[in-house]
Amino acid sequence: MGSVYALVAAAGRSTRMGDGVNKQLLDLAGRPVVVHALQAVQAVPVDGIVLVVTPGWEAGFRSVLDKYGWGRQVAIVPGGASRGDSVRCGLAALPAGVELVVVHDGARPLARPERIREAIRQARQWGAATLAVPVKDTIKMAGEEDLVWETLPRDKLWQVQTPQVFNFELLMEAHRAAARDGFSGTDDASLVERLGHPVKLVPGDYANIKITTPEDIALAEALL
Amino acid sequence: MGSVYALVAAAGRSTRMGDGVNKQLLDLAGRPVVVHALQAVQAVPVDGIVLVVTPGWEAGFRSVLDKYGWGRQVAIVPGGASRGDSVRCGLAALPAGVELVVVHDGARPLARPERIREAIRQARQWGAATLAVPVKDTIKMAGEEDLVWETLPRDKLWQVQTPQVFNFELLMEAHRAAARDGFSGTDDASLVERLGHPVKLVPGDYANIKITTPEDIALAEALL
Repeated sequence: MGSVYALVAAAGRSTRMGDGVNKQLLDLAGRPVVVHALQAVQAVPVDGIVLVVTPGWEAGFRSVLDKYGWGRQVAIVPGGASRGDSVRCGLAALPAGVELVVVHDGARPLARPERIREAIRQARQWGAATLAVPVKDTIKMAGEEDLVWETLPRDKLWQVQTPQVFNFELLMEAHRAAARDGFSGTDDASLVERLGHPVKLVPGDYANIKITTPEDIALAEALL
Repeated sequence: MGSVYALVAAAGRSTRMGDGVNKQLLDLAGRPVVVHALQAVQAVPVDGIVLVVTPGWEAGFRSVLDKYGWGRQVAIVPGGASRGDSVRCGLAALPAGVELVVVHDGARPLARPERIREAIRQARQWGAATLAVPVKDTIKMAGEEDLVWETLPRDKLWQVQTPQVFNFELLMEAHRAAARDGFSGTDDASLVERLGHPVKLVPGDYANIKITTPEDIALAEALL
C-alpha cells in the first residue's frame, strides 16, 4: 500500500474566539488543542504530517511543537487567504508518490485513531471518505426574511467532521478545479463531490467536536 | 392581547441517556433540568403552563415540582406514545380562548426569556415562529451505502430549537392534519409548514442546548 500523509489545517482566523486568540493553541488538559489533533493522526499512524498555519505564525507553532517534543516530525507550511488556499499550500508541500491524504482540522482535538483508520480503509476503496455523525437536531432551510422554505429529512442528514481522507491525485484535481472555478466549499469533500466522484461517510463520534467558541474548551475537557 | 400558555414537553424516552434515566430530572446546578425549562417560560411571563410527562410519571414530576415550590402553578398531563401525541395531549388540556402556545422542550434548560419574548412577538405577526441558530457544521445528505448525495448550502441552514410559538388555532389545525395523515415531524413547526403556512425563524443562542447525552449536562454546567 502507498504512503499516507496527514495535512492538519490550523490557519483559521478564530474570529469567533475574540481578538488575538488562536483556538488551535488554547490549552486543553495541559496541551494545546493542535497538539491533541496532531497526536490523533500520528497514532493512526501516518507516514508524515504537514501542518498549515497562518502566515507569520510559523515560528510560534514551531516553538510550541518543540516544547511538546514534536519538533522535527511535522513540516510547518504557511497557508493562504482562505481555507481552500491553505489546503492547497499544504498539498503542494507533500512529497511525490503519496497515495492518501488525511485532511484534519487543527481545532479538532478529540478524533479517535481507530475511526481515522476506518476512514483510510474506506478511502482506499472509494477514493474519498469523511467522518460524520447523524444530525440530531431539526434542520430547516430558510430564505429571505428568515422564513422557512422546508424542513430537511433528518434521517438522511449527516454532520460532517474531519479527518477526511482522499486519494492524493483526486484531491489535487478537486482543488485545481475549485481554484479555477472560484468555488469555495465548506469542506474538502464537497470539492470532490463537484467532480461527480463518490464520497463515503464513515460514522464518527459526537465527541469529535471542533473548537470554535470558548465554551467548546469546557465541553472538550468534560469529554476527555 | 390574548393569553399565552406554555406547553412543556417532558415525555421523551431518554433512550440516549441509558436505562432508567429521565433526562428532564437530572440535576443541573442544584435543580432538575425541567425546573430550569419551566423557569425560563415562567419568566417571560406566560399565563399558564402545562407540563406533559410520560404516563405513570405524573406523581414523580408533581413531587419534584412541589419540592422546588412549583406545586400549583403547573398542570401536569400524561402524554402519548409519540412526541406528536404528547403535544396533542397537552393542547387538549389548554383552556378555551388561548391566543398563543409556547411549545418548549423540558430538556432545554438554558432558553433565555428575552428570546422567547421575541418569538412571541413574531408569532403574533406571522402565526408561527421558532428559535433557531445558523448551522456551523457542514451538513451533507446521504442515501444508500452512506454515499453523499449533496452538500447542503450552509448559509441557508438553521438548526431549530424550542421554544416554538404558535397561534393556538393554527397549531391545533396542524396537529389534527398530522394525526389524520400519520405524519410525524421532528418538530411542531414542520406540522405547520405542511399546511403551507409561513414559519418565522427567530435567532436564538447556541447555548440553548437540548440535554440528550450525559456529556450535555457537563456542557450545560459550563454554559451556566
